[in-house]
Amino acid sequence: MTAGRRGTADHGYGRGMTLLQDQILTVSDTTAEERAQRLTAAGTAWHERIAADAGAAQLTYRVTGRGIGSVATEIRAGKHRFLVDEPAALAGDDVAASPVEYALGALVSCQVVVFRLYAQALGLTIDEIEITAEGDLDVRKLFGIDESGRAGFHDVRVKVDITGPDTAEQYEELRRVVDAHCPVLDLFANPVPTSGALV
Amino acid sequence: MTAGRRGTADHGYGRGMTLLQDQILTVSDTTAEERAQRLTAAGTAWHERIAADAGAAQLTYRVTGRGIGSVATEIRAGKHRFLVDEPAALAGDDVAASPVEYALGALVSCQVVVFRLYAQALGLTIDEIEITAEGDLDVRKLFGIDESGRAGFHDVRVKVDITGPDTAEQYEELRRVVDAHCPVLDLFANPVPTSGALV
Repeated sequence: MTAGRRGTADHGYGRGMTLLQDQILTVSDTTAEERAQRLTAAGTAWHERIAADAGAAQLTYRVTGRGIGSVATEIRAGKHRFLVDEPAALAGDDVAASPVEYALGALVSCQVVVFRLYAQALGLTIDEIEITAEGDLDVRKLFGIDESGRAGFHDVRVKVDITGPDTAEQYEELRRVVDAHCPVLDLFANPVPTSGALV
Repeated sequence: MTAGRRGTADHGYGRGMTLLQDQILTVSDTTAEERAQRLTAAGTAWHERIAADAGAAQLTYRVTGRGIGSVATEIRAGKHRFLVDEPAALAGDDVAASPVEYALGALVSCQVVVFRLYAQALGLTIDEIEITAEGDLDVRKLFGIDESGRAGFHDVRVKVDITGPDTAEQYEELRRVVDAHCPVLDLFANPVPTSGALV
């Protein structure tokens, strides 16, 4: 397995610029057999850890973001970092995807993980998987033009394209199981108690 | 303003590897005056567009993700792309942040944009802003160990650290206004109608 590595080229950025992502991210190809072994091992390990100590099921995730540039944010999540920006129409420099696009990307990528996990559990095969998420948003609330609506997406549609040897009925059953167990889909579909505070 | 540019070094990746992010993302420094001009111009332009055509307020965002490697996803959002992975404990290669970390990063970065926007609208000054989001998750639902709970975060805490010349009361009022208008906070705090389908 190949983890991310840093590029070694001298990119020669001048003063007044912030180098935000200098990691060249790669992932090696994985055979279906290797993925199956990893998923089975991961599931078994979690079952054993949680059977021994129910508290092992409780995870806290934490990310920190620093406002940079015009309206951009540099996010740190453990050893990883990524940049979020806005297009010019929202006062940004458009050097990275926007917050709501990252939210949709979180949904799509979480679905991929859970499709992998439950395909393995149900004995189904996924040769290729591609997922599109679309979200509709009315910007009038964001800009305070109309306070009656909501600020976030009022409709999200997820379209899953799987290729593989199993039947449409089996993949549809898989999709239903995935949707019942996907953390980010739950975050979209159901209210999450969220509190804010100045520190 | 400096948009992202591609590195030109030959990174010499061999066969069997997928180059996922070869963009070196940078954002130039922005003065407070320049940001203020951009935010004001952006807000004015949206008000004018929407006054002329209410339909201009309706935006549809779309991202597509392709499963790669073990459980990773390469996300495309317009001209931008980013990689999502999982740590080894979830069968990944840990070359990028995980889906739930991207969800928290979406929240943090959206808050930053809306703090910028409403600080400008309210005549407040933000010298520096750093936001941390923590989310608590019980993995038993994800792994099907206990079906009674929820798959996503059951609690999220957002901590906002602002430095600037205005009073604590003014920043607290700003925070309340931001939370009422932040698209991704709304996505967390309230249910979003979300449908899935195989294609």
